[in-house]
Amino acid sequence: GDLGINGSLCKLSVPYCIFKGKAALKMDPIGPKFSKLNPDSMRIERRGCVLLTFFPAIGVRKYDWQKRQIFALSATEVGSVISLGPTDSCEFFHDPSLKKSDEGQVRKSLHIAPNSDNSGHFFNLQVTNAIQKTMDRLSVPVAKAELSVMQSAFSFILPHLMGWDRIANPMMRLAPENLPSPNIVRLPPSEVEWDR
Amino acid sequence: GDLGINGSLCKLSVPYCIFKGKAALKMDPIGPKFSKLNPDSMRIERRGCVLLTFFPAIGVRKYDWQKRQIFALSATEVGSVISLGPTDSCEFFHDPSLKKSDEGQVRKSLHIAPNSDNSGHFFNLQVTNAIQKTMDRLSVPVAKAELSVMQSAFSFILPHLMGWDRIANPMMRLAPENLPSPNIVRLPPSEVEWDR
Amino acid sequence: GDLGINGSLCKLSVPYCIFKGKAALKMDPIGPKFSKLNPDSMRIERRGCVLLTFFPAIGVRKYDWQKRQIFALSATEVGSVISLGPTDSCEFFHDPSLKKSDEGQVRKSLHIAPNSDNSGHFFNLQVTNAIQKTMDRLSVPVAKAELSVMQSAFSFILPHLMGWDRIANPMMRLAPENLPSPNIVRLPPSEVEWDR
Amino acid sequence: GDLGINGSLCKLSVPYCIFKGKAALKMDPIGPKFSKLNPDSMRIERRGCVLLTFFPAIGVRKYDWQKRQIFALSATEVGSVISLGPTDSCEFFHDPSLKKSDEGQVRKSLHIAPNSDNSGHFFNLQVTNAIQKTMDRLSVPVAKAELSVMQSAFSFILPHLMGWDRIANPMMRLAPENLPSPNIVRLPPSEVEWDR
Repeated sequence: GDLGINGSLCKLSVPYCIFKGKAALKMDPIGPKFSKLNPDSMRIERRGCVLLTFFPAIGVRKYDWQKRQIFALSATEVGSVISLGPTDSCEFFHDPSLKKSDEGQVRKSLHIAPNSDNSGHFFNLQVTNAIQKTMDRLSVPVAKAELSVMQSAFSFILPHLMGWDRIANPMMRLAPENLPSPNIVRLPPSEVEWDR
Repeated sequence: GDLGINGSLCKLSVPYCIFKGKAALKMDPIGPKFSKLNPDSMRIERRGCVLLTFFPAIGVRKYDWQKRQIFALSATEVGSVISLGPTDSCEFFHDPSLKKSDEGQVRKSLHIAPNSDNSGHFFNLQVTNAIQKTMDRLSVPVAKAELSVMQSAFSFILPHLMGWDRIANPMMRLAPENLPSPNIVRLPPSEVEWDR
Repeated sequence: GDLGINGSLCKLSVPYCIFKGKAALKMDPIGPKFSKLNPDSMRIERRGCVLLTFFPAIGVRKYDWQKRQIFALSATEVGSVISLGPTDSCEFFHDPSLKKSDEGQVRKSLHIAPNSDNSGHFFNLQVTNAIQKTMDRLSVPVAKAELSVMQSAFSFILPHLMGWDRIANPMMRLAPENLPSPNIVRLPPSEVEWDR
Repeated sequence: GDLGINGSLCKLSVPYCIFKGKAALKMDPIGPKFSKLNPDSMRIERRGCVLLTFFPAIGVRKYDWQKRQIFALSATEVGSVISLGPTDSCEFFHDPSLKKSDEGQVRKSLHIAPNSDNSGHFFNLQVTNAIQKTMDRLSVPVAKAELSVMQSAFSFILPHLMGWDRIANPMMRLAPENLPSPNIVRLPPSEVEWDR
């Protein structure tokens, strides 16, 4: 007699990918996580994000999954990308070990900057690991049309990352055990990261 | 046999918060209130709003809930924020006691103005209480990316505040007893306020 | 066992109104009309529109419903309003009797033009009736924030007027007898009108 | 006990058409295609597109369906159209036989360019068929308001083409056998085409 969603709800991955000569960039929306306070109320435990995954190229249209680097854009950082004009740039800094014993050992920065002829932006990721003494740099040129897809898709998904869609649509506020959170990628704990 | 939403629909609060040095700003969408005219028709009794709550800081990352001040943005005021350009400013005046015996005793103004280097806007709230002879001023700097999040989220929620989503989606027009209004915060009557 | 929408779906009117000194402007989205081709397929019979209703003022905050004039914006005209910049103007011409015996007898024009200080637009409706030898002019000043609400709400509703939401959401393609069209205002045939 | 969508879900076509003197342009959103990986997970097999169909005029308001030409805009190309400014132009090249034996025999190009007085854009389609030794050219002038409708509708549909709406709305992730893909037009294999 209910929505018939018990057991029949599928996991689904719908990345948007940009493949370029030296690296590729994959974007996955990660839904928020809700928890139950009591039988009648729930709260948002962790807001969603857009997970960026960079892959270096190791040949023509071949990319190295082992050497991938991730960067999880928060709602506010998603807002930065949405409002990015043709000549704007922005930079974000993350520490995946914030408030842990190895805080500061790994530093990630994502620098988004227009290219010289204003035909698009470079997405430059730099990951410095003081323990392993490594520094990875990955850069993907994003054309104007691709940035437009990102901005449209990010504008669509932002209210969902914030949980505001559940305010707008009461049917989205079914009890958590009946309606799974729209999390689709289970991040291993070590890969979760937050803004500094 | 129905949507299975009887008893299993949860209350949910999904504020978007901006924490700054001197004060914090919390935003909560409040859904419209519908009422039944007769068994076959309903009408919108009160349009929704976006409730802004300002909190003064009383230490590092500590805010004083007791000294909070609220300002409920109407649909048209939400429209002002959505259309706010980088160098635009706007100002709204509210009287929480409009058309009551103590009309004019409490005056609220929200002034949104660009900061000097155009990197964002200040949200300045001033509340003057003639009875208690107090004047509170709370100011939160909102960065460009944060304003972009607000504008995206407000654009998403505006049709819901107006009830237009229930026109677009017939399933949202189930009888009110079956489908609760998406009101999530029950405002105490004393805190309800309207534009002058 | 189904969606439980048999008999419990309510009619709902959610106009957005702008009340000004000399006249008022009411906006109602009217959903598209679908018809069944055969048991397995349906088609859009008439696209939706946004119905504008103008009322002249007959006193302070009093408006004359008897002297109302309507103008139904088509999808393309809604697109014009959405894309209207601060200094842009546009004009639409309608004949409510197009392809009928009294074609050309009633002429309607809606002229949207920026006001002199660029703080908003005037919505000027002119209705000329050659049979009754009357000409009505109604003008409502629409502030920048109000136009922004209209543009956000129109952008939200446009895909629904076109029926594209039913492509995006398969649950919106239930058989017509199960899922009523989101038409909320039953226009009397004489009031239906189309672009020339 | 389930959504009651077994058997009662209708096929629906909701094209947006622009009829002009020398040719007409029809736009149909085509949903993505999902497939099941195992009982608990599904993946996007092919992203959706917006199918453009051009028809030459053969008289006043008469168009020749037999001589139609199609061009399927990918998500990134839809992004290009969404971000097209009043003075921007763009061009796309397709080969419907990419990676097949007759690769390169048919070449399609869509050139979107502003007209001389900036009142809109021309959509110019050129199809060269080396086997049949034919070249078809079809050009449709698209007014500013019509482009605005396209941009609003494309912005709405883009997340659906990418499958991101199924992330946002868990009810859209019912098992594929329960919830048909929103594909509405079954393209004959010969008409499927992809970006080069």
